[in-house]
Amino acid sequence: MSVTPWEVTGKVDYERLMKDFGTQPITPALKKKVDLLAKDSNVLLERDVYFSHRDLDKVLSDYETKKGFFLYTGRGPSGDMHIGHILPMLFTKWLQEKFGVNLYIQLTDDEKFLVKRERDLEEIDRIANDNILDIIALGFDPDKTFIFKNTEYIRNMYPLALKISKSINFSQVKSTFGFENSTNIGMLFFPTLEILPTMFETKRCLIPASIDQDPFWRLQRDIAESLGYQKAAQIHGKFIPPLTGVEGKMSTSMPETAIYLSDDEKTVKQKIMKYAFSGGQETVELHRKHGGNPDVDVSFLWLKYLFEPNSKKLKHIEEDYKDGKILTGELKMMLVEKINKFLEEHRQGRDSAEDMRGTFMHSGELAEKMWKKIHK
Amino acid sequence: MSVTPWEVTGKVDYERLMKDFGTQPITPALKKKVDLLAKDSNVLLERDVYFSHRDLDKVLSDYETKKGFFLYTGRGPSGDMHIGHILPMLFTKWLQEKFGVNLYIQLTDDEKFLVKRERDLEEIDRIANDNILDIIALGFDPDKTFIFKNTEYIRNMYPLALKISKSINFSQVKSTFGFENSTNIGMLFFPTLEILPTMFETKRCLIPASIDQDPFWRLQRDIAESLGYQKAAQIHGKFIPPLTGVEGKMSTSMPETAIYLSDDEKTVKQKIMKYAFSGGQETVELHRKHGGNPDVDVSFLWLKYLFEPNSKKLKHIEEDYKDGKILTGELKMMLVEKINKFLEEHRQGRDSAEDMRGTFMHSGELAEKMWKKIHK
Repeated sequence: MSVTPWEVTGKVDYERLMKDFGTQPITPALKKKVDLLAKDSNVLLERDVYFSHRDLDKVLSDYETKKGFFLYTGRGPSGDMHIGHILPMLFTKWLQEKFGVNLYIQLTDDEKFLVKRERDLEEIDRIANDNILDIIALGFDPDKTFIFKNTEYIRNMYPLALKISKSINFSQVKSTFGFENSTNIGMLFFPTLEILPTMFETKRCLIPASIDQDPFWRLQRDIAESLGYQKAAQIHGKFIPPLTGVEGKMSTSMPETAIYLSDDEKTVKQKIMKYAFSGGQETVELHRKHGGNPDVDVSFLWLKYLFEPNSKKLKHIEEDYKDGKILTGELKMMLVEKINKFLEEHRQGRDSAEDMRGTFMHSGELAEKMWKKIHK
Repeated sequence: MSVTPWEVTGKVDYERLMKDFGTQPITPALKKKVDLLAKDSNVLLERDVYFSHRDLDKVLSDYETKKGFFLYTGRGPSGDMHIGHILPMLFTKWLQEKFGVNLYIQLTDDEKFLVKRERDLEEIDRIANDNILDIIALGFDPDKTFIFKNTEYIRNMYPLALKISKSINFSQVKSTFGFENSTNIGMLFFPTLEILPTMFETKRCLIPASIDQDPFWRLQRDIAESLGYQKAAQIHGKFIPPLTGVEGKMSTSMPETAIYLSDDEKTVKQKIMKYAFSGGQETVELHRKHGGNPDVDVSFLWLKYLFEPNSKKLKHIEEDYKDGKILTGELKMMLVEKINKFLEEHRQGRDSAEDMRGTFMHSGELAEKMWKKIHK
């Protein structure tokens, strides 16, 4: 198993990651408190898709005592967005809705250029602009959400970036990210900019993100207080497994592992039918007799992670699959229908997203404020 | 002897630096060619204050063949400007006047913040804004000169900065600048931005600078062509010796070594009289008999480097000093008068410089063009 911001391979052992990274499990009591303050419950917490945290308890206290908090997440525009990218975004959207807080969404176009030998800036920019439409289509609050590309917002961030970068040395980025003598100096500097939005406000920052981004937050927590800011809180999500099985994560460079937001109905069906790893038996007869294993069945896991919000229904599906009442093909078709319904709505959302680009990036209430502010 | 962008100590051996840095001496033939094309001659070349170069011959060829070239110099705003900072600026001004070319002046406010442990950004910014007035007062062409602070112009430079930083790794900045594992990641990235203005145009860039900045240009020459730009040419100047003697260079942190542009008449006189290292004899009698040594006499050297443009007069002074006809005190008074005349004019220039700040930084012909341009 390897889990870094740039690579996830092997079967991810989330218990071990919590121990290695020094994070806390989200306890039933903490879940209950979230539900109470949110006046709602979220299946991603209920089902332990979001399973680990740092200082989530403090975030909730800050909310209770009216100190408030803010949300920060991001997207590395390396290619078309797929289902795996949507999960943290949707969870973030839920948090914003329920707590009514500001949200900053960073597009790390700079990092994607620096890390990929063969990419040029024009291509990354095209991808970033397209990804932004997918993000807008999810329906964030246009006056409480600021979406920005690092290459465009850098002037407003640079003075604070200097302060952050002055407090981190080569040894630290080497040990935190595994950087080497051959790492380019753009990448050596880059952690500065992923850390920076945690300091957009003096309130506590809560980052809902996949756990592979954790090294950035560990570094942030080492330096934040010396710069007059708070240690960022995190709530960590698991990876939706790739179509092809429960190891690693969906990869933009391996189309058979993922469903893209741009996949049409036919492609979705073909991919699921062909690639979705099955926990079922080899023949219908054996399946009816022994039943399937939902724990490794990617179609079931996708329903669990994202596409079946009704927990009672999900429980029925799980039991029926275990009992051999539902065949793999039937389970796959349930998922195909759910995904295609989601993507149909997403396409409609994208159609009107272009009109909202200016609002989220420049003229919305929060965006306008952010462009006037030089972070120091 | 140590000559780096951040430290100059000991007696500087310029012959050895040329060998170590791999630069060429400015030959009489090359000087003649400069004079011919400039339709004028410059005492700084005549007197070997500018003594070394890379590709100056190519710059002159580009000028002859109408390909053209451009000038780039800079200022690290670490404190009040002194006489030592003026020398490259005045030489650059002469080149701009005679060749009618664009000039870019970079204020490395970011670097000065990153390199000095105790400095805050507000103080650096105050210094930068004050230094800019001193620079403007020298009288550059307002429509062909763009003066910018890195912290303000970063957005326009950042995409190209990413390209440059992607092509340089830690090993290279370690060997070029002596950076260490404890160097902060801001400094590791910074060489990117000092290199960048050499790529503001696709024409060849000529950098008139003190030789201590040479590591940046060696690195630039390693990577420029792979990015589609030309290797930058340099013309290297010697350091005006500190008042206190011919070792090292004037230091902002040691007021007795330098005359500041802000020093008043009385202070100038006091400093020269008290600190200017003398090549004279211990008593008037001995001096009349044996004469002084102009090669180590700082007052004479300052006249030679900057304050006595008339070479015939300078020759007389030199001979009379050697012959003991001019006493140290008399030589010092000549310098005091020259400096105070220069500073009086400079103060007048500064009075009207504030009105020109907007022109050089934003609204002049070149400045306006530069703010519209995103360097990629």
